[in-house]
Amino acid sequence: MKTIYLDHSATTPVDPEVVQAMLPFFTERYGNASSIHHAGRDAYDAMGAARESVASLIGASPDEIYFTGGGTESDNLAIQGYAGHPVNRKRGKHIITSKIEHHAVLHTCQFLERQRGHRVTYCGVDGNGVIDLDELAASIADDTILISVMLANNEVGTIEPLREIRRIVGDRPIAIHTDAVQALGEMDIDVNELGVDMMTLSAHKVYGPKGVGALYIRRGTRVGPIMHGGGHERRKRPGTENVPGIVGFGKACELLARDGAAVRERVARLRDRLVEGVMARVDDVVLNGHPTRRIPRNASLCFRGCEGEALLLHLDMAGICASSGSACTSQSLEPSHVLAAMGVPIEIAHGVLRLTLGKGTTEEEIDYTVDTLTSVVDKIRGISAALGV
Amino acid sequence: MKTIYLDHSATTPVDPEVVQAMLPFFTERYGNASSIHHAGRDAYDAMGAARESVASLIGASPDEIYFTGGGTESDNLAIQGYAGHPVNRKRGKHIITSKIEHHAVLHTCQFLERQRGHRVTYCGVDGNGVIDLDELAASIADDTILISVMLANNEVGTIEPLREIRRIVGDRPIAIHTDAVQALGEMDIDVNELGVDMMTLSAHKVYGPKGVGALYIRRGTRVGPIMHGGGHERRKRPGTENVPGIVGFGKACELLARDGAAVRERVARLRDRLVEGVMARVDDVVLNGHPTRRIPRNASLCFRGCEGEALLLHLDMAGICASSGSACTSQSLEPSHVLAAMGVPIEIAHGVLRLTLGKGTTEEEIDYTVDTLTSVVDKIRGISAALGV
Repeated sequence: MKTIYLDHSATTPVDPEVVQAMLPFFTERYGNASSIHHAGRDAYDAMGAARESVASLIGASPDEIYFTGGGTESDNLAIQGYAGHPVNRKRGKHIITSKIEHHAVLHTCQFLERQRGHRVTYCGVDGNGVIDLDELAASIADDTILISVMLANNEVGTIEPLREIRRIVGDRPIAIHTDAVQALGEMDIDVNELGVDMMTLSAHKVYGPKGVGALYIRRGTRVGPIMHGGGHERRKRPGTENVPGIVGFGKACELLARDGAAVRERVARLRDRLVEGVMARVDDVVLNGHPTRRIPRNASLCFRGCEGEALLLHLDMAGICASSGSACTSQSLEPSHVLAAMGVPIEIAHGVLRLTLGKGTTEEEIDYTVDTLTSVVDKIRGISAALGV
Repeated sequence: MKTIYLDHSATTPVDPEVVQAMLPFFTERYGNASSIHHAGRDAYDAMGAARESVASLIGASPDEIYFTGGGTESDNLAIQGYAGHPVNRKRGKHIITSKIEHHAVLHTCQFLERQRGHRVTYCGVDGNGVIDLDELAASIADDTILISVMLANNEVGTIEPLREIRRIVGDRPIAIHTDAVQALGEMDIDVNELGVDMMTLSAHKVYGPKGVGALYIRRGTRVGPIMHGGGHERRKRPGTENVPGIVGFGKACELLARDGAAVRERVARLRDRLVEGVMARVDDVVLNGHPTRRIPRNASLCFRGCEGEALLLHLDMAGICASSGSACTSQSLEPSHVLAAMGVPIEIAHGVLRLTLGKGTTEEEIDYTVDTLTSVVDKIRGISAALGV
C-alpha cells in the first residue's frame, strides 16, 4: 500500500538535492571544522556557506546564526541561555510566554520557575489561537527580561502577531524570542521586520535533515551557553559541528528561497481543497486555528463524536499518516494544551486530527484522503452510536 | 595532491557501509520516531535496533542507552544532569575529576563551581598521563557524589585505570562517569567490568556520522535532563530524534564489533612503525603518554626546538593532516593543559604533534609521513638555528 504522508509538521522527507549536497561530507570532505589543516578548513568553509544561506533566508547576518542539534536545543539555548546569563539575571527574573507554545518552550519556562527562581506569565489566546495582546501588554513588569512567543503554532497553524508584540515592547530592554520551527518555509520571515532578537529554526521541518537546527541571536543580545566544552559556534554551543547536517540545512534554505513561494501557493490550494472537501461531506467538523492567518500546510480539524486516536489508526490502516497534534506529545493521552487554551471543549478536543501537507502532496492524495476520512468518520460515529456512547 | 589523513582522533570518515545504512532514512523511511503511524513506528523500530547495537558493544542494556547530539552533550548531560538532580544536590556538592579531561568535562565542572555552588577536585596525573589514584582516594569526602575520569585521553592516548577507581570507591554512593569518546573502538569496553555508572560515547570518532552521541546511564542512576521539551529518550533528552544519525551510529558499532579487533591490531602495528621510524631518524623526540597503556591509533610526539604550529603547516603543505592535540582547542594558542598536567616543560610542549591513525591508513602513508616529518623537522630546526632562536 502506498503511503500518503500528511504529517509534514512532524517531520519532512529530506529533499534529494539536500541529500546530494550532504553526501560528500560523510566520506570525502569529512574534516573536523575546528582542525587547522586543509580538510578542516574545507569543512569550516562549507559550514560558512550554509550559515549564509540560513541567514539570508531570514534577513539576518551570518554571524547571528548559531547551529545547534535541533529546535528543542535552540529553544533551550534561547530561554535558559538568555535568562541564565549573569547580566540578565541581575536585571530581572520575569518571563512572558503564551499558553500554546511548544513544550520545548513551556517546559523550559516551568524549569526556570521551579529551579531557578524565575517568574513566568503564560498569556492566554482567543478561540483562533491568537495571543491576547492586552494581557501581554498588561503583564510587562519592571523585571521582565524576555518574551517568548511562537511565530506559528505547531498544532493549529495560527500565525502569531510578533510585529505587534515588538510594537508593544517598544525600546524597553526586553528580548523577544520566537520559535519559528513551524513558520520557516511557510511564510516570508525577516527578523528585522518582525523585530525579534532570537529565532529558533529546525532543518527537518523544511526538507532538511533531523538533528540540526539553528538559533538566530541578534548582535548584542546576551546569551550564554547551556552546555560547556570547546569554543565552537563562537563560544555559544560547544561540540564538533555536524558538518553534513549543517550543509544540508543550508541547502534546504536555498531551496526554500528558490521554490518556497510557489510551493506555498500550491500547498495552500491543496489544503483548502482538503478542508472544503471534508466540510462538504462530513457533519459536525470544525477547523481549528485562525481561518486565514495560518500556515499553508496545516489543516487541524475536530470531528465531534470521534476519538482522534481512532481516526489516526483507521487512516493509518488506509496508508495515510496523520497526527493528533504534536508528534512530540503523541505518546501522551492528555488532551492538547493548545486546544484547551483556545477554549475548545474537551469532548470536541478529543476528536482532533492534524493533517499537514508537503511539497510532494498531490491532488489525488487529497481526494483519496477526503474519501477515506469521510468513511472512517462515518464508521467510528456508527460504532459510537451503536454502543450508545 | 593526495590527502594523508592522520587526525582520526579529531574525526573519522564515515564508513561507506554506515552511509548506506543511513541513506534510506533521509528520503524513504523519514518518519518522526514519536509519530504513532506506520512511518513513525518504522523510524522508532530502526532506532531500537541501533540502541541494541550500541548497548551490546559496551555490555549495557538497550534501555541504558540515551542518544544525544554528541560527546559534548553527553558529558554535559552526565555531569550537569547528575549533579543538578535535586536528590543528588541534597546528598552533596563535591565532584572529583582529573586535570587532563576534555574541555566538555572540565568546563562543565568549572561552570558548576562558578554558578551552582559545587566544589570540584581536579586530580593530577603522572608523567605518563595516568591519574594519581592516591590523590583521588584522599580527596573522597562525605559530600562526594560524582567522579568523572576519561577512559582514554584525547591528546596523548593514555588509558586511565577506571577499574581501580571503582575499587577505591567501593560501594559508596558515588557515581562514576567516564568520557569514552576516544576509547570506543580502540579497546574492549564493558561497563560492568569497568564498574562505571555513566559513559559518554560519540559516533563520529568511530566512522559514524557527526552530530550524534550517546550516554550510557546505569539503571537506577539519577540523571535529570539538561534541556526541556518533549518526552523523548525516556524524558532525559527532548527533541526529535536524529534517526539517520542514530541508525548510522548503530551500524558503526556493529562494524566495530565485527572488525574492531583486527583493525586495532593493524593500526597499532602501523603506529609503532611510525613512532619507531621517527625515533630512528629524528633526534630529541619524546613520545607523550603511557608507553604501553595507550590507545592503538595515537602517536603524540614532542619535537624539541619546533613549534607544533609550524610542524602542522609544513605537514599540511605535504598533504598530511595532523593536529597539535585536540581539534576542539586548535584555534587556541594556549599550551596543552594535558601536557602541562603531565609536567612536560612548556618549551617542549610547544613542539607537540598528534598523529592519529585510522582503518584506512596504509604502510606507504606511514613511510611517507616519516620521510616528510624528518625533513620538516630538519628544516624548522635549521631556520631556528639560523635565527639563533
